[in-house]
Amino acid sequence: MSKTIATFYHAGCPVCLDAESAITRYLDTTKVNLEVVHLGTAKNRVAEAEAAGVKSVPALVVGGQTLHLNFGAPMSALK
Amino acid sequence: MSKTIATFYHAGCPVCLDAESAITRYLDTTKVNLEVVHLGTAKNRVAEAEAAGVKSVPALVVGGQTLHLNFGAPMSALK
Repeated sequence: MSKTIATFYHAGCPVCLDAESAITRYLDTTKVNLEVVHLGTAKNRVAEAEAAGVKSVPALVVGGQTLHLNFGAPMSALK
Repeated sequence: MSKTIATFYHAGCPVCLDAESAITRYLDTTKVNLEVVHLGTAKNRVAEAEAAGVKSVPALVVGGQTLHLNFGAPMSALK
């Protein structure tokens, strides 16, 4: 069975790092391939994140769902 | 190694159910014991959730971190 792709979008903020710590520790890596994307440095990925429904970071897109994990920064701060 | 306790607080709202679906599907159950708490019916758990820093549901408390997953309802709506 192929793994689900999970993408964690962040911007290096303290709230982002806390969420990343929990995600990387507790996400089931037998089921998902996790990619971590820093939108502050990979600005070319901002449009892709917005298309997936990401309104703020940190956010996790997995299995067709977009989960905002607490609130670090709005997408508008990353453009 | 003993498992980490994870508690998912919700109130049966649509946003809650979407988040619960992702959490129960992708959380690594070899590392965590997940408990799902419906604060609409288990009102006696509201104080415990607030003590853990839960401001709204759905939220996941795991490994000392409190992650609000999107926004369904404020805690004030559950009292």
